[in-house]
Amino acid sequence: MGASRTLGVVGAGQLGRMLHQAAVSHVIGPETTIRFLAEHPDEPAVQVAPSWEIGAAMSADDLTRFAKGCDVVTFEHEVVDLQAIRALERAGAVVRPSAAALAIVADKVAMRRAVQGAGLPVPPWCQVADADQLDDAIGRWPSVVLKLSRGGYDGRGVFMPDSADEAARIGRTLLQAGAVLLVEPRIAFEAEAAIIVARRPGGQCVVYDPVRTEQVDGQCREVRVPSGLAPAVAARCREVAIAAAAAVDVVGLLAVELFVLDGGNVVVNELAVRPHNTGHHTIDACVTSQFENHLRAVLDLPLGDPSLRCDAAVMVNVIGNAAGDDPVDHLEAALALDPAARIHLYGKRARPDRKLGHVTVCADEVDDAAARAWAVVAALHGDGRP
Amino acid sequence: MGASRTLGVVGAGQLGRMLHQAAVSHVIGPETTIRFLAEHPDEPAVQVAPSWEIGAAMSADDLTRFAKGCDVVTFEHEVVDLQAIRALERAGAVVRPSAAALAIVADKVAMRRAVQGAGLPVPPWCQVADADQLDDAIGRWPSVVLKLSRGGYDGRGVFMPDSADEAARIGRTLLQAGAVLLVEPRIAFEAEAAIIVARRPGGQCVVYDPVRTEQVDGQCREVRVPSGLAPAVAARCREVAIAAAAAVDVVGLLAVELFVLDGGNVVVNELAVRPHNTGHHTIDACVTSQFENHLRAVLDLPLGDPSLRCDAAVMVNVIGNAAGDDPVDHLEAALALDPAARIHLYGKRARPDRKLGHVTVCADEVDDAAARAWAVVAALHGDGRP
Repeated sequence: MGASRTLGVVGAGQLGRMLHQAAVSHVIGPETTIRFLAEHPDEPAVQVAPSWEIGAAMSADDLTRFAKGCDVVTFEHEVVDLQAIRALERAGAVVRPSAAALAIVADKVAMRRAVQGAGLPVPPWCQVADADQLDDAIGRWPSVVLKLSRGGYDGRGVFMPDSADEAARIGRTLLQAGAVLLVEPRIAFEAEAAIIVARRPGGQCVVYDPVRTEQVDGQCREVRVPSGLAPAVAARCREVAIAAAAAVDVVGLLAVELFVLDGGNVVVNELAVRPHNTGHHTIDACVTSQFENHLRAVLDLPLGDPSLRCDAAVMVNVIGNAAGDDPVDHLEAALALDPAARIHLYGKRARPDRKLGHVTVCADEVDDAAARAWAVVAALHGDGRP
Repeated sequence: MGASRTLGVVGAGQLGRMLHQAAVSHVIGPETTIRFLAEHPDEPAVQVAPSWEIGAAMSADDLTRFAKGCDVVTFEHEVVDLQAIRALERAGAVVRPSAAALAIVADKVAMRRAVQGAGLPVPPWCQVADADQLDDAIGRWPSVVLKLSRGGYDGRGVFMPDSADEAARIGRTLLQAGAVLLVEPRIAFEAEAAIIVARRPGGQCVVYDPVRTEQVDGQCREVRVPSGLAPAVAARCREVAIAAAAAVDVVGLLAVELFVLDGGNVVVNELAVRPHNTGHHTIDACVTSQFENHLRAVLDLPLGDPSLRCDAAVMVNVIGNAAGDDPVDHLEAALALDPAARIHLYGKRARPDRKLGHVTVCADEVDDAAARAWAVVAALHGDGRP
């Protein structure tokens, strides 16, 4: 029997919940506990896991207290007090991914610099910290996207103004609030793709198949695999993702969101160092899920096979609608509609635009999988049978 | 939002643990809790689930108290105080499977009668309650098997004497202890098979593919699917299983263990009304696991597709060896050996003959899957690479 060990997970949302589900298979036992730092006692992971404590990921005190009880600390989101994480590392805590990796992804400017510095392709961009830089950036491209360098998530913090005037207005407002911006041209892309790498401390890594994603207002709606990308483009995505994982020196998961440009070039749009929405299909469609591989990576265990185990899979998010319908109320109809659909609900109160769950359908053909997954999501919204 | 609801599970062993893992997907939420009645605070399900209380399944008081907090009560084992369960039903509790179904499977004589009474095939057998009946039974067949009618499990309570004299000696000892026995001839069979049915209150059911099982001393060692049974035999297994589920009027799962006789006839050996060891492969090899379908059935939700999602799968149990080796100590080697193997460890202290976990390998071909699964189990026992 090994020594007793606690894996601490900062955050207790749906990603923590799915990490816990994966940890039941062979991680949790008399010697290994998984413990969550939760903001509230009704969070998704708290509903399903026995070990948690209340605390804020942005509080140095809470993080420090939490880490004291843990042998390894990992994260289900990146909105954490980085100073505290750095201090914990200096004091000898095992933090995976590291504070350095978290710092890169917590700041879109730092992220761009890191990716570019590793010789990897990024879209044109510039940092904007004052009004002169703003005007310069807006003048540089026909239309621009403004992104808060820090603090945005899930489409929040990204602005797509319709004109240069509107860009200037929004930009000034954000700068006055003290923000630093990343400004880039609106890119014409052929597709949005994403790819997930799991990486151990020694650098061993496995890579999932690239997926094609559909985003609405910066929020992931649908993930398709196979991606339909040309083999050379898919290979380039893999190559870029592995290089990015090494550049960030991530331990755990790295999710890389890419734009595939007309002509087949790819550029890195965003990075995340945690389980990612574009990998939720891996629970039902891959030999080893992203969640299990995150656990294996941060516990320095050999990684699992990331291969697809079906010809095609589509994941569609269940996102709270304007009416505030609760998908739980329509679960029975959704289960009846498609006995092979894999329905995941996170135990969150229904609110507009909130990610409440996801549905994955595995099938022989990707369009068939998509039609079926969207039909089940419609049923979960109470929209009746399609 | 629906009304708040608690599903109570009597028992907190590995079956409860895997039920909990399945319940994370879409059962547990702000309105639905799953709660375990555990004998000890270190049991497999308690390690992974937030809601449980200590109590004995054989204690009427504990069961009654537990049931008071539950809207639906189900079971992960059948060693329960049936009188108390009957009283709970009379008082209006929703118990699934019912006391009547539990009573049938808790007593091998009652089980045989029920199966036979439904017109389904069983081996030759007789009930033995005194010495005269014992002598009569022993004289009837060249060699016999003695089974305790009540209280046996996992090979315990089954005796295979080598001679008539030994049979008489063992039988008398058991009778003197107050036991009732089921005595049957040792049957020459071509194969042992098992099949699992999930059944809702209204009678809707789904049936898993029959599997071929290998038992050692009455304990399940290996499960193979496809079973290799002739199509007509497999069809007969399905037919018998569905009829048995209706005869028992089970709500939840019915596992049917069968002997396939030379010539292809099948006879029902045993029934269980809960998730079953012969269905553990369904977690990784089927669209919907037996655990998820048990939950759906007892919550009266539409059942999930039980289809295999790979060409072949083999499950091998990890059973405590004489040396008391803990498979957790060898997890890293086992994970490294086969990145596609699915390793499940239950968090139980290692003891000889104890079921500590299982390994499932999905592959194109069943012998390949078996070789790989056994190799991973060997690695978990610290036996080195094969």
